[in-house]
Amino acid sequence: MGEQLRVAIVGSTGYGGVELIRFLIGHPQVQITSVISSSSAGGLLSEGFPHLNEIVTDTLDGVDIELIRSKADLVFTATPHGVSSKLVPQLLEAGLKVVDLSGDFRLRDGSVYEHWYKHEPADSRYLEQAVYGLAEVFGEDVRDVSFVSNPGCYPTATLLGLIPAVQAGWIDPATIIIDAKSGVSGAGRGLGLTVHYSEINENFLAYKVNKHQHTPEIESVLSRVAGHEVTTTFTTHLVPMTRGILCTMYASMNGERTDEDFIDLYKQFYEGRRFVRIIAKGKWPATKEVWGSNYCNIGFSADARTGRVTIVSVIDNLVKGAAGQAIQNMNLMMGWDEALGLGLTPAFP
Amino acid sequence: MGEQLRVAIVGSTGYGGVELIRFLIGHPQVQITSVISSSSAGGLLSEGFPHLNEIVTDTLDGVDIELIRSKADLVFTATPHGVSSKLVPQLLEAGLKVVDLSGDFRLRDGSVYEHWYKHEPADSRYLEQAVYGLAEVFGEDVRDVSFVSNPGCYPTATLLGLIPAVQAGWIDPATIIIDAKSGVSGAGRGLGLTVHYSEINENFLAYKVNKHQHTPEIESVLSRVAGHEVTTTFTTHLVPMTRGILCTMYASMNGERTDEDFIDLYKQFYEGRRFVRIIAKGKWPATKEVWGSNYCNIGFSADARTGRVTIVSVIDNLVKGAAGQAIQNMNLMMGWDEALGLGLTPAFP
Amino acid sequence: MGEQLRVAIVGSTGYGGVELIRFLIGHPQVQITSVISSSSAGGLLSEGFPHLNEIVTDTLDGVDIELIRSKADLVFTATPHGVSSKLVPQLLEAGLKVVDLSGDFRLRDGSVYEHWYKHEPADSRYLEQAVYGLAEVFGEDVRDVSFVSNPGCYPTATLLGLIPAVQAGWIDPATIIIDAKSGVSGAGRGLGLTVHYSEINENFLAYKVNKHQHTPEIESVLSRVAGHEVTTTFTTHLVPMTRGILCTMYASMNGERTDEDFIDLYKQFYEGRRFVRIIAKGKWPATKEVWGSNYCNIGFSADARTGRVTIVSVIDNLVKGAAGQAIQNMNLMMGWDEALGLGLTPAFP
Amino acid sequence: MGEQLRVAIVGSTGYGGVELIRFLIGHPQVQITSVISSSSAGGLLSEGFPHLNEIVTDTLDGVDIELIRSKADLVFTATPHGVSSKLVPQLLEAGLKVVDLSGDFRLRDGSVYEHWYKHEPADSRYLEQAVYGLAEVFGEDVRDVSFVSNPGCYPTATLLGLIPAVQAGWIDPATIIIDAKSGVSGAGRGLGLTVHYSEINENFLAYKVNKHQHTPEIESVLSRVAGHEVTTTFTTHLVPMTRGILCTMYASMNGERTDEDFIDLYKQFYEGRRFVRIIAKGKWPATKEVWGSNYCNIGFSADARTGRVTIVSVIDNLVKGAAGQAIQNMNLMMGWDEALGLGLTPAFP
Repeated sequence: MGEQLRVAIVGSTGYGGVELIRFLIGHPQVQITSVISSSSAGGLLSEGFPHLNEIVTDTLDGVDIELIRSKADLVFTATPHGVSSKLVPQLLEAGLKVVDLSGDFRLRDGSVYEHWYKHEPADSRYLEQAVYGLAEVFGEDVRDVSFVSNPGCYPTATLLGLIPAVQAGWIDPATIIIDAKSGVSGAGRGLGLTVHYSEINENFLAYKVNKHQHTPEIESVLSRVAGHEVTTTFTTHLVPMTRGILCTMYASMNGERTDEDFIDLYKQFYEGRRFVRIIAKGKWPATKEVWGSNYCNIGFSADARTGRVTIVSVIDNLVKGAAGQAIQNMNLMMGWDEALGLGLTPAFP
Repeated sequence: MGEQLRVAIVGSTGYGGVELIRFLIGHPQVQITSVISSSSAGGLLSEGFPHLNEIVTDTLDGVDIELIRSKADLVFTATPHGVSSKLVPQLLEAGLKVVDLSGDFRLRDGSVYEHWYKHEPADSRYLEQAVYGLAEVFGEDVRDVSFVSNPGCYPTATLLGLIPAVQAGWIDPATIIIDAKSGVSGAGRGLGLTVHYSEINENFLAYKVNKHQHTPEIESVLSRVAGHEVTTTFTTHLVPMTRGILCTMYASMNGERTDEDFIDLYKQFYEGRRFVRIIAKGKWPATKEVWGSNYCNIGFSADARTGRVTIVSVIDNLVKGAAGQAIQNMNLMMGWDEALGLGLTPAFP
Repeated sequence: MGEQLRVAIVGSTGYGGVELIRFLIGHPQVQITSVISSSSAGGLLSEGFPHLNEIVTDTLDGVDIELIRSKADLVFTATPHGVSSKLVPQLLEAGLKVVDLSGDFRLRDGSVYEHWYKHEPADSRYLEQAVYGLAEVFGEDVRDVSFVSNPGCYPTATLLGLIPAVQAGWIDPATIIIDAKSGVSGAGRGLGLTVHYSEINENFLAYKVNKHQHTPEIESVLSRVAGHEVTTTFTTHLVPMTRGILCTMYASMNGERTDEDFIDLYKQFYEGRRFVRIIAKGKWPATKEVWGSNYCNIGFSADARTGRVTIVSVIDNLVKGAAGQAIQNMNLMMGWDEALGLGLTPAFP
Repeated sequence: MGEQLRVAIVGSTGYGGVELIRFLIGHPQVQITSVISSSSAGGLLSEGFPHLNEIVTDTLDGVDIELIRSKADLVFTATPHGVSSKLVPQLLEAGLKVVDLSGDFRLRDGSVYEHWYKHEPADSRYLEQAVYGLAEVFGEDVRDVSFVSNPGCYPTATLLGLIPAVQAGWIDPATIIIDAKSGVSGAGRGLGLTVHYSEINENFLAYKVNKHQHTPEIESVLSRVAGHEVTTTFTTHLVPMTRGILCTMYASMNGERTDEDFIDLYKQFYEGRRFVRIIAKGKWPATKEVWGSNYCNIGFSADARTGRVTIVSVIDNLVKGAAGQAIQNMNLMMGWDEALGLGLTPAFP
């Protein structure tokens, strides 16, 4: 097994961290050599996550660059915003490959980051070095690089749904409205009334309306694709379920198109990419169709009556929106098949 | 008790029916004299609804116009689309007051009804007679009439959220997009995979995209308010919860407005109407805030960056979206305080 | 309204507190004159509970005995274990009537309390003064007293299900096993992983097996009824829902009895008590049948094959298991109809 | 791939069927050669299960013995009670290996089957031929046989939790009480009010009290282990979640034992069986710890106060309680490692 890639996970005690572990355990080319947590170092990972009992028997390491360097070749940093910005540069300087799951390296412009995230931005040298790993769109950029910034959960669902239409010029970017809904796991394992069962069960709510920090990430990528600056309306909602994101996206069409036109366009755009599935005419995706898997399903309704198209995309926020896409990026960085270790079928029901 | 209004409920074995009963039991001016079901006549209502054991001990009557006439002064018809269109005219001809909870009398134009509902429309004489009972907006029209068509659940949440802005000319009706989400009880008690627990739990999905039969109801009322024909994009989603509708509505603003401007406008518009609550700046409503009650909560985000306003409204689909508003309409028809019998505080958590 | 009872609620910002308010708002003989919170004094109650916006506009008072004395005649103390033991004596000394919803006065024996609750017990003078308010069983003891200790949620469901059979000598108390299941609201509004949505949704678990602090409360009452000391096995589980307790209770029968025998016995025992409903033969209760109401439903299966009876009872833990029974006790203390203000029909679905 | 075992699944359009497929897709020694459904033959499996789009592209075959014989070496019959009893003999006569997931071959005594299942029993020749595949207990019996009857979901969780203690003589079998709770997927994909989302969400209920058809299966195995006839009290409950069974089991202890004693006994009994995990002292299992996996977790509380032990076990009803154990049995029948293809880590959260 000496030829396997040695992988460390910083932030192993978060939902993104244990989801990385769930997939990496079955990855044929990888060995998990260090599970790391700043808060729980010295304890067993399975102490806080009994589902891993007898599966992962490792003790948690602390965040120690030298130790990581000695144990690993590649590091997943599933750390909060404001932590990665400090940690990742050290890991890179130590010669490690990095896939960062935080928002700290997704925006090239530090001032935009500061405005939306209310944190100090990372050093611009590293911002420039980061490759934005939206695998099905910018996967070629990822091949052979050593530092990838993994897209946010909402941006992944949104961008996979919008980019082919924007690139084809079929919709007017100025009219894009994104109505996004997420399960509660997106908020992480931290405590608060907004993740309190009795408050969230049998409840549906909007939050951070026009204020979500994923807005500039979506806009900067759409601008890059459109070739001019794009501003969007983006609303997020909390769904009483654990996993899943569904984005309903609206835009005015340039010219008359049918559902079939969109289906053909997207099938062509995503040809050969097994994790994007285009839904048949007259059907729309449900989050449960992708639960626990790395798939993104996309459906369309081009409405001649209003001249607008409605595009609906779904992902599992912890997989395609976090751990799964991060592993997909690792695969691309290493020159492997992007689907390696990611072949799990969605769990239904 | 002889002076109480005698009330019959057709469709007592549906969710709308039992919700009418829950409220009417506590209504000081009303006596339920007949619970009616075409499918279960002769049985006990509580047989199928054990929560009513020892509370409602009535045997279900069949649908018999003479019997209803002998027992009741006013009838709630909580019957499916396509049934009310035939039944209501008979009840009216028998001299009964009627509040119809179906979609059969909400659209004046029978051909539009036929297009969206795929049913034969009701006789146009009765369509013209029906008063559309959106209580906080058209309540004055309802006073003293004998036939009210109760608004749909989605249209209630949508229209209460949009009408003040449309009437004030603050938003461009041509740009309105409505992204609606509903709990499962809106689909009724009928069986099917789309209400199967194992399929819907931990799932979120879009349905009837650009095809929902509530679309023309929303458009016809907005057109009436705007003074010209309005077309909208309307999407519906299913939320894994039992009760609650949240509508997120988007429109381009005519001129610059702030959140405070919208709050003031709406507070003024709904002054004196206790069932509409305008949310404070920087907050957005959650469905659980109105669970089990007749309230509609509305919040705003006027976004200078995009020139759009986002309006979020919530109701309990079975109360304000059905039974509660129907009772409110009965109160108005009878010249009573609109809130009579509707004073239940939302149940939280 | 000067003749109404003036009522204060200490612990208004807990789930028990807001549930007291939901019912008391509709109570014809009561006026809420002070909502009290040690942690949030000075703020609006509705700030933390937006479902009460425009319904309860009161500012929260602090815990100030003099202020309470000046404002109220009766106080509900919905305070945590270990707080009531100190607070209630002061309220009683100030001449106030008290209904305490904590566990601090349910056990006569301070040492037993200390063993199970791991807190210092209340002064024995007050322990002796407290009347245990299991309304349908000991309701006569409550009439005209000034201090009632409100039963725990699990003990209420358990004892209402077991007492008639124990008193009749139909079951052997030494064989009683209680398997209890509760919704999450029983754990209160405090934060922790055990109420974290992502951890509890789609999860079912056992907790505090053989260690739950309600065990001695159940045993002491059963011992009182049986006339000799009773020890029981009591297990608690967490159900992924907000409200509801279901207790499945097992015991060996003394002699042969049928379901009908039990039904008759219980109907007779609870004759005239509207909040206990005995389920028909061959049916078993569901928590949703009592959701939001003060009912307790009980069903039976006497099994000749094994010589054991299985008794199943359900309540809404926040109503019959807390706020509702507390109001019932207030009604009894005041000599009113026990059902006053408690007439809400269960909300279904 | 010619050396792989060719496998057919009858009942592919049920939850057990698609769960078999989810695991078998990743099984290194197996090829799914026919997905079979009597009701949907000719259609695509993914038509009814869109989560399988582009993963399983097969058309459903009908139930045709000749066709199955030509395509497969081994058949999983995930068919309803009363169907397997007729179908399995035909498959066996055709020379096929069979793992039957129904209840039709779990009871040797046809008259007992008829009493509890209300169906005609299978021919006694085949009842005698069936090997009961409780893998961790009777796995040796399964090696190299051609027909295995897969245990029921409740019996699996119950028996794995009870057998070591019964076999060791540590508990009195006559005192065993089993309080079982299951998620809704156990009821299958069929329609009915008992799986209707609005009726089951935020609800917990008991059903089939003392009448569940799994009772004789549990009793016959316990009797076999105890060496004398055992009668038990068995109650089933429905939990508002999709997957998971938790069984709380009570029995009087013969002699004094501690938690540690039970832990040691069970660790020894299940030594080398990776799918049973014994929980540490002072902890109890939660269904989510095994979600989507083939694990069974077991915890203990030996209570000196009452002389009883409480044993809690959890499984995923669709995996260890159905598809997973069926594959485990196939592995044993083929002489392979029992864990082959079953290595999925539980999905958390």
